[in-house]
Amino acid sequence: MAVAKPNTSGLPRRVLGIDPGSVKTGFGVIEVNGANAQYISSGVIQAGSGPFAERLHNIYQAIVEVITQHGIMEAAIEEVFLNRNAQSALKLGQGRGAAMCACAGAGLAVSEYTPRAVKQALVGRGGAEKDQVGYMVRAILGLKGDIKEDAADALAVALTHVQQDRFNARVAGQRG
Amino acid sequence: MAVAKPNTSGLPRRVLGIDPGSVKTGFGVIEVNGANAQYISSGVIQAGSGPFAERLHNIYQAIVEVITQHGIMEAAIEEVFLNRNAQSALKLGQGRGAAMCACAGAGLAVSEYTPRAVKQALVGRGGAEKDQVGYMVRAILGLKGDIKEDAADALAVALTHVQQDRFNARVAGQRG
Repeated sequence: MAVAKPNTSGLPRRVLGIDPGSVKTGFGVIEVNGANAQYISSGVIQAGSGPFAERLHNIYQAIVEVITQHGIMEAAIEEVFLNRNAQSALKLGQGRGAAMCACAGAGLAVSEYTPRAVKQALVGRGGAEKDQVGYMVRAILGLKGDIKEDAADALAVALTHVQQDRFNARVAGQRG
Repeated sequence: MAVAKPNTSGLPRRVLGIDPGSVKTGFGVIEVNGANAQYISSGVIQAGSGPFAERLHNIYQAIVEVITQHGIMEAAIEEVFLNRNAQSALKLGQGRGAAMCACAGAGLAVSEYTPRAVKQALVGRGGAEKDQVGYMVRAILGLKGDIKEDAADALAVALTHVQQDRFNARVAGQRG
């Protein structure tokens, strides 16, 4: 596994988290400054009801806009459950491909985390319930009120990525 | 089903066919002028061995280049076999998503054809062997020598699209 490079730019890091889908794609942007993670933006991209290729391009285009608008420096995306049939895996894969494509096109590295790793990072238990993840996202980022599930999942992936980076940096520090 | 609009521009049509994959993506470009289909270009895009998001973007970028270079006006892509497991369907979906995304981004309509429809269109039998399709592609386009299988499949999808369009136009003509 590649060890994350510490951010030596002095700039706060902007991280994009993505919860992929073929119909709805959640996104969440956080800013990381030392030990502090701050909420910047989140939302749910609707792929629309046009021809399928157009829907994929809507996802692509919306992710490119989020990256540009918020000066994103790195991205993290949820790996998907595979206890589903090949037809739905194919559809989901196409949506996920569009989102990853947009990140790579903007020059971003894209880290991938399983739902289990996200639960482990946020709740401390890989088998945690989904609503516990949403609760922790709101608590960590100090969010009031409701947030859509796909957006919360995307923020959770971004927070997982930051935590993983800190862990990697610590491991590298101990080794170095 | 939408009935294809006849090409009233007077220009020969450039059609891009795509045989999608996560590792190799075949493409084929043909030019259609009345009843005549002419070979323009074909090849196999290698997604490379970099990070996964980068591989997807390589596919995206290569398809954009083919579209731009050859002045493509419409695209056709092969629907995928689903008698495979969810893991491989997901991977294939991601590659296919990148390719479709590139087409939609260039403003192209993307038609989809099953392998069975392609065999039916080219060989006259949905259950035809794969090498019969390659043989017919070479015969119809007057190609000498070998052509890579993925490129031949992509040309077959493009030819299927043209044949389907002619059929739709005839049906519309009979109804009109």
